[in-house]
Amino acid sequence: MAAGRSLRSLGLLLLGALMISPSALPQEQRPLYLMPVPSSVQIGAGALLVDSSFTVGFAGYTEPRLDRAVQRFLRQLSRQTGIPLGLKPIAGGKPVLVIRTGHASKEIQELGEDESYVLETTATGAKLSAPTPLGAMHGLQTFLQLVDVSPNGFAAPAVTIKDKPRFPWRGLMIDSARHFVPLDVIKRNIDGLEAVKMNVFHWHLSENQGFRVESKKFPKLHELGSDGLYYTQDEIRDLIEYARDRGIRVVPEFDLPGHSTAWFVGYPELAGGPGPYEIERRWGVFDPAFDPTNERTYKFLDEFIGEMAKLFPDRFFHVGGDEVNGKQWDANPKIQDFIKAHDLKNNEGLQSYFNKRLEPIVARHGKSMVGWDEVLDPTLPKDIVIQSWRGPDSLAAAAKQGFRGILSNGYYLDLGWPAARHYAVDAMTGAAATLSPEEQARILGGESCMWAEYVNPENIDSRIWPRNAAIAERLWSPQEVTDPASMYVRMEIISNRLERLGLTHKTYYSQMLRRIAGPSSPEEFAALGRLASVVEPVKDYTRHRTAPAEPTSTTPLNRVVDAVPLESASARHFGELVDKFLAAACHDSASEARLRAQLTAWRDNDARLQPLAQRSFLVKEVAATSQALSTLGAVGLAALDFLAKGQRAPDDWKAQQLAVLQQLEQPKAQLLLMPAPAVQKLVEAASAGGACFASN
Amino acid sequence: MAAGRSLRSLGLLLLGALMISPSALPQEQRPLYLMPVPSSVQIGAGALLVDSSFTVGFAGYTEPRLDRAVQRFLRQLSRQTGIPLGLKPIAGGKPVLVIRTGHASKEIQELGEDESYVLETTATGAKLSAPTPLGAMHGLQTFLQLVDVSPNGFAAPAVTIKDKPRFPWRGLMIDSARHFVPLDVIKRNIDGLEAVKMNVFHWHLSENQGFRVESKKFPKLHELGSDGLYYTQDEIRDLIEYARDRGIRVVPEFDLPGHSTAWFVGYPELAGGPGPYEIERRWGVFDPAFDPTNERTYKFLDEFIGEMAKLFPDRFFHVGGDEVNGKQWDANPKIQDFIKAHDLKNNEGLQSYFNKRLEPIVARHGKSMVGWDEVLDPTLPKDIVIQSWRGPDSLAAAAKQGFRGILSNGYYLDLGWPAARHYAVDAMTGAAATLSPEEQARILGGESCMWAEYVNPENIDSRIWPRNAAIAERLWSPQEVTDPASMYVRMEIISNRLERLGLTHKTYYSQMLRRIAGPSSPEEFAALGRLASVVEPVKDYTRHRTAPAEPTSTTPLNRVVDAVPLESASARHFGELVDKFLAAACHDSASEARLRAQLTAWRDNDARLQPLAQRSFLVKEVAATSQALSTLGAVGLAALDFLAKGQRAPDDWKAQQLAVLQQLEQPKAQLLLMPAPAVQKLVEAASAGGACFASN
Repeated sequence: MAAGRSLRSLGLLLLGALMISPSALPQEQRPLYLMPVPSSVQIGAGALLVDSSFTVGFAGYTEPRLDRAVQRFLRQLSRQTGIPLGLKPIAGGKPVLVIRTGHASKEIQELGEDESYVLETTATGAKLSAPTPLGAMHGLQTFLQLVDVSPNGFAAPAVTIKDKPRFPWRGLMIDSARHFVPLDVIKRNIDGLEAVKMNVFHWHLSENQGFRVESKKFPKLHELGSDGLYYTQDEIRDLIEYARDRGIRVVPEFDLPGHSTAWFVGYPELAGGPGPYEIERRWGVFDPAFDPTNERTYKFLDEFIGEMAKLFPDRFFHVGGDEVNGKQWDANPKIQDFIKAHDLKNNEGLQSYFNKRLEPIVARHGKSMVGWDEVLDPTLPKDIVIQSWRGPDSLAAAAKQGFRGILSNGYYLDLGWPAARHYAVDAMTGAAATLSPEEQARILGGESCMWAEYVNPENIDSRIWPRNAAIAERLWSPQEVTDPASMYVRMEIISNRLERLGLTHKTYYSQMLRRIAGPSSPEEFAALGRLASVVEPVKDYTRHRTAPAEPTSTTPLNRVVDAVPLESASARHFGELVDKFLAAACHDSASEARLRAQLTAWRDNDARLQPLAQRSFLVKEVAATSQALSTLGAVGLAALDFLAKGQRAPDDWKAQQLAVLQQLEQPKAQLLLMPAPAVQKLVEAASAGGACFASN
Repeated sequence: MAAGRSLRSLGLLLLGALMISPSALPQEQRPLYLMPVPSSVQIGAGALLVDSSFTVGFAGYTEPRLDRAVQRFLRQLSRQTGIPLGLKPIAGGKPVLVIRTGHASKEIQELGEDESYVLETTATGAKLSAPTPLGAMHGLQTFLQLVDVSPNGFAAPAVTIKDKPRFPWRGLMIDSARHFVPLDVIKRNIDGLEAVKMNVFHWHLSENQGFRVESKKFPKLHELGSDGLYYTQDEIRDLIEYARDRGIRVVPEFDLPGHSTAWFVGYPELAGGPGPYEIERRWGVFDPAFDPTNERTYKFLDEFIGEMAKLFPDRFFHVGGDEVNGKQWDANPKIQDFIKAHDLKNNEGLQSYFNKRLEPIVARHGKSMVGWDEVLDPTLPKDIVIQSWRGPDSLAAAAKQGFRGILSNGYYLDLGWPAARHYAVDAMTGAAATLSPEEQARILGGESCMWAEYVNPENIDSRIWPRNAAIAERLWSPQEVTDPASMYVRMEIISNRLERLGLTHKTYYSQMLRRIAGPSSPEEFAALGRLASVVEPVKDYTRHRTAPAEPTSTTPLNRVVDAVPLESASARHFGELVDKFLAAACHDSASEARLRAQLTAWRDNDARLQPLAQRSFLVKEVAATSQALSTLGAVGLAALDFLAKGQRAPDDWKAQQLAVLQQLEQPKAQLLLMPAPAVQKLVEAASAGGACFASN
């Protein structure tokens, strides 16, 4: 009866997957919403009910970390179902879920350890097998994603899942230097990483704007370089333990020789130019850089890296290496003499010299050096790892030269790209596709990056999630899993699950809007919400350029642009609806009604928002955007009228509307009106002799 | 220019209060949303802008607790505005807000200490003066409530507020025994108490269903009586410190001699009947009770109370004393013999004897005994305090006899009453109004009570807040502050502020609905939300009686009845709209349009919810309620049609509709359809020859 159907790694198929149910249960038709998609899923018969008798037991190898993982799992399952569950794995009896682990994983988690698992659920129980605790922990997360409400109670459908990651390095970088990110915020994001099976937390710890780690050897680093906002060594040890418990490595980054003003506040003698220095408050690339010609620099870094190498047990140690503008070196005759004397040609040569001095220091303390593209130098040992912000071709070139690399270009979360755009970025495309298998193996994976100019504890989760789940899937799931529609459906579901886990990427939003609105009627507040739901902050690096005043690290992040998610789900849904309506040659009256309702609400919204704009300077800032939305609604309604009546719109009308739309697409208050392109489609359809008029 | 207008303690006037602004600022018309309403408010000219230069300084007495209070205040102000603020009170310079405190308050906070303060804000600064830190802390909370977004930035209007509490005992009781309430949940509720100026946390710590405190003298109490869910003594000390920092006393309650099954699991020899005992899982009043005839009981309680008296520094010690059903005593011949031998007449006499033995024990350990109504016995010392669950008359009677009392009747949060009903309960009404001033002074205040049969960490905040703010206002503000409309407006605003403070009474809701819905489209989820927004759980004690299966302490609290707030704001707003429409003799077309939109959405909602009901057993449970809402919408629309057309509805139509409405008002799935009475008003108006037809 349970003749399972093998569904190899196809998100779309998974979505439509049927489950064949035993007679005890009514027919079920429930899609799976797994993210990342496993490498293989076979659908079985029936479903495993999860009720208060649910228990977990171990067979085979176990360790305290697994115990804790199961307790977390049960707590989470309890939260997910609202059913009180015994919070300890049981020793005897016949547990509902049996975990069989082969052997211990490495004491310090290593790159490339076996993370695979097999999870089998049936109507009567579940088995999870994994060579190591890492795989077992991934399997527990998959189990959590299987459980949902059903017609008969909470249940996990019967499936057999065989799963393993595509890439061994799947990371998120958080910049806690530009804005300090408190430890509890880091921790809830680590929880998020565990949920989407990422295994590296890359911690960007020093910048022009702050040095964030307690150094016992050089206390002036954190005392003078952090405004008191730094992590103690105890806190860091705690965080590393926390991450290890979730199968996540912690790779520290200390950016050298540039991005380093905050170091020089306490130790000006290490800089390439004269002090004194202050913590930088502005954003950008600044002049201060270490003096690579000074032996004191290497002595200092040797001691400092020695201290940090003990604090951070991971094999990899990131030294940054990006964006040295060289101005300080240019201005220093001693440094220029050194370049000439050592035949280094230019500042680039000098940075190369610096890296060649730095690498043995890092290696001596037992670490492999990681750096951004700029550190790549064919004469460095092949042990180093290149993190590419430049792109996959640069990564492929490095791999050809024998260097390992990880991709971050295309995964910068702060640029405000839609999830689908990140999702389409694959490290193995372009030049990488032509590499030999041996060379391809050097491409270890990738990391999403959360640069922190415009984030604080309140909105950072919303800048990372849920989009980071799409990148996590790219790095875990088979390369063929690429359908953005499937991804979006699952991302919206995982987003709710992440919020339940403790992330605040959804709840922060209404609080920020409340603050922006101030005391307001339900109608006024709804009007603000309607406007906010269809705008996005300006993209890429235009936020800085278009800022009303130069933004700094103390600028309040309380404007609408700081509050709205970086990707508007409402605008996307509207776009899908327009496509559906036009694809049906305008003969879809349900879609037409929904479009009309939406466009009418937009047209009428500005009047409802006006009272708030009178009372709140933060709403007033978006008054022009609000008017633009009203105009957009009116334009869309006019187009829809033509389409509904089967009247072709005159050409001058079209020209006029397109001119209006072009105006509406200009950013206002650093916000983009996202449904504008979809409305433009309606306008173009209304004035084209297309399918919509064929049979009208 | 700043000829302020004195507004003594009138919520309504406060709401409409105008502010006269200096020429530097545009005209402002901003009401004050203070809760509780202060005893006196005088409106000044202009407003104090709050920006990143905002600082706080001390003049006069200070202490570390005040320092911490100011740090909390600045953190909260920063969260409220999104503006980074220096998080330490400054020593020198010229601070924007100057706090002048007279002298220290008592080492252990006492009943009746001076809690008054004066807060003056002007366009250039603010002064807060208070005799003690208690008043200063209240004043800081008032300041936070003054600050909101304005046309020019965040600002506090210029005011002079002179404020002090009406009653010295203003408390919240939380039952952490029936369901265990983790410490972090208690703490966030303490934060809420501080925000609304309550000053007592009454901690109900033992019950049939659990004994929640670590006892070092009698460890079997918590080891065998709590399922491992108890507070360690360190945690309790931490909580008391936390509460003291917020001006809140902690009064422990150990319920004796009934409600005590959990004690007997470890110490069966203390009970009035033979053991063994198990932790009770059901709800209700049960037979086990201490044996008052056994000297071991008093020896045990002496030692136990001695231990707890040291742990809880407050002067008051609550011994419960309620609801002894006497069955165990009836069944024990030895106890019956004792009653006869000591001429105690009956079980009531025996309980009286018990209390007379207990009181000196409590007193010997330095405490005043508090008990529920049942402990009242004219022969007990006048030092005891009666907490009345029976009502104000019982309290007045006690006061006449010389006993102090606090009111809880009318303040039971678990009964699901609307805030306005709690708000109307005043300890000084009824028999109390006729007491002499000296007797009235014995009525110390009141306590809201959160009994915990149907709450857990997920939904408890929503059962306490925001309604508890209305009770807090009753206990703090002048007796004349009684307007429910003003209260509701301010309660909705304070509700958002409390959520920002960390309470979860709003955010829990969408998470619970998400769980109930499972993966769903935005339309489906909105349909569930629309239904949930207009239903309330059945009231008073009917929840137990109408339960689908006998509820116990392990029953999942994941149904719609557990998720929805106890008071529906949507239904209240709808009722107000109906009243407005009818009061305008149906000539209010804007209201008519809103009514029509609302009723149409209800009528059409069931169809949208159907797919969810097919997929989720938790939605299926409310399918009949959903159909009822659709019918209600249809009935309302029909009535509205008559009214709009000026046609009087026939009598048989009316009779039919009223019969339908009567059906709709029956609880389904333990839920009440709250807009039914307002729709009934429409039906009655449609068929009456009233004002709506006069000029149609």
